[in-house]
Amino acid sequence: MNFPSKLIEQAVGEVSKLPGIGKKSALRIVLHLLKRSENETQSLADALVAVRTQIQYCRKCHNISDSELCSICLSPKRDASVVCVVQDSRDVLAIENTGQYTGLYHVLGGIISPLEGVSPGDLKIESLLQRLKHAPEVREIILALSPTMEGDTTSFYLQKKLRPFSLKISTIARGIPIGGDLEYADEITLGRSIVSRINYD
Amino acid sequence: MNFPSKLIEQAVGEVSKLPGIGKKSALRIVLHLLKRSENETQSLADALVAVRTQIQYCRKCHNISDSELCSICLSPKRDASVVCVVQDSRDVLAIENTGQYTGLYHVLGGIISPLEGVSPGDLKIESLLQRLKHAPEVREIILALSPTMEGDTTSFYLQKKLRPFSLKISTIARGIPIGGDLEYADEITLGRSIVSRINYD
Ligand SMILES: [Zn+2]
Ligand SMILES: [Zn+2]
Repeated sequence: MNFPSKLIEQAVGEVSKLPGIGKKSALRIVLHLLKRSENETQSLADALVAVRTQIQYCRKCHNISDSELCSICLSPKRDASVVCVVQDSRDVLAIENTGQYTGLYHVLGGIISPLEGVSPGDLKIESLLQRLKHAPEVREIILALSPTMEGDTTSFYLQKKLRPFSLKISTIARGIPIGGDLEYADEITLGRSIVSRINYD
Repeated sequence: MNFPSKLIEQAVGEVSKLPGIGKKSALRIVLHLLKRSENETQSLADALVAVRTQIQYCRKCHNISDSELCSICLSPKRDASVVCVVQDSRDVLAIENTGQYTGLYHVLGGIISPLEGVSPGDLKIESLLQRLKHAPEVREIILALSPTMEGDTTSFYLQKKLRPFSLKISTIARGIPIGGDLEYADEITLGRSIVSRINYD
């Protein structure tokens, strides 16, 4: 693509690094900004920098948070006897949007993937075990990882590590297409798969 | 959608104002930024603000430019006897990318649209007429507007205004699907429609 301006070329280059945005969409976005006020572009830029530099993670569940403890961990309305283990904050959002789950979460920050060099030590697994040691109120752990090879490996590893705690351990029902990404599941399927979760053992 | 953080909510709100980006894509983009370094987000934000605040428009053809005159108007390789009239800078890019056109451009900055309140006075039409008065080298005007009702109205208006100049006036061949947007045309179709342009009258 030939650009009429270095500024356009740079902006298109930056925007097209974002997931799901090709060069053509990036150009549309940049040219769109030129039609709007400078204030609007400044607000966009400020919001992006703010979210990146000011974001915090909950000390307890590692979900995205604006404070030391997230709003879910702080809420007295949540059922503290159930902890749902997920890969990342996107999955928390997806499950929250189903409106079917009232327990707490634990965000691993990834899944075990030898191919991508992600080992158990890179994830918030030790943090989960420590958390459970000081949370006798927890009765059930739901492993809500994507039904992929890496997700299954991680679930298997977690089951082993959780065995000493004598908790009920369940996994979400495989209503989600096998091999599919959790975040792409529609809300009804995902909600139902939480409600009809399957106990391990 | 429930957001775990005001910062995320604000950033998603800003990103989803961009064309072609819904709330779900915006969230993917924002969470993606959290995984990358702060520098990368800063570069993105800087490039967006720079393009919005520092961009210039060519004094002669009104195309996007980094200087007072754009690289096309300044190039001695371009055929100054032909001027291609387009709706906006996106169309210049689309035509340039075909590699089929070697003349100059004139960017109207829109098309006549009574419904959207765009009248001839809002466009760079008077500027085109003034430009032609001082450019006896121009022999042909190509009207390369989208083959929509507004595009046709604008072409018709321009033909009337250009009549006194006794120039050859042509329009791009309607190889492009009628009702289609110029910028979505593939390069081959668009290139061919420029080469086999049709003379008016
Ligand atoms: Zn939390
Ligand atoms: Zn120019």
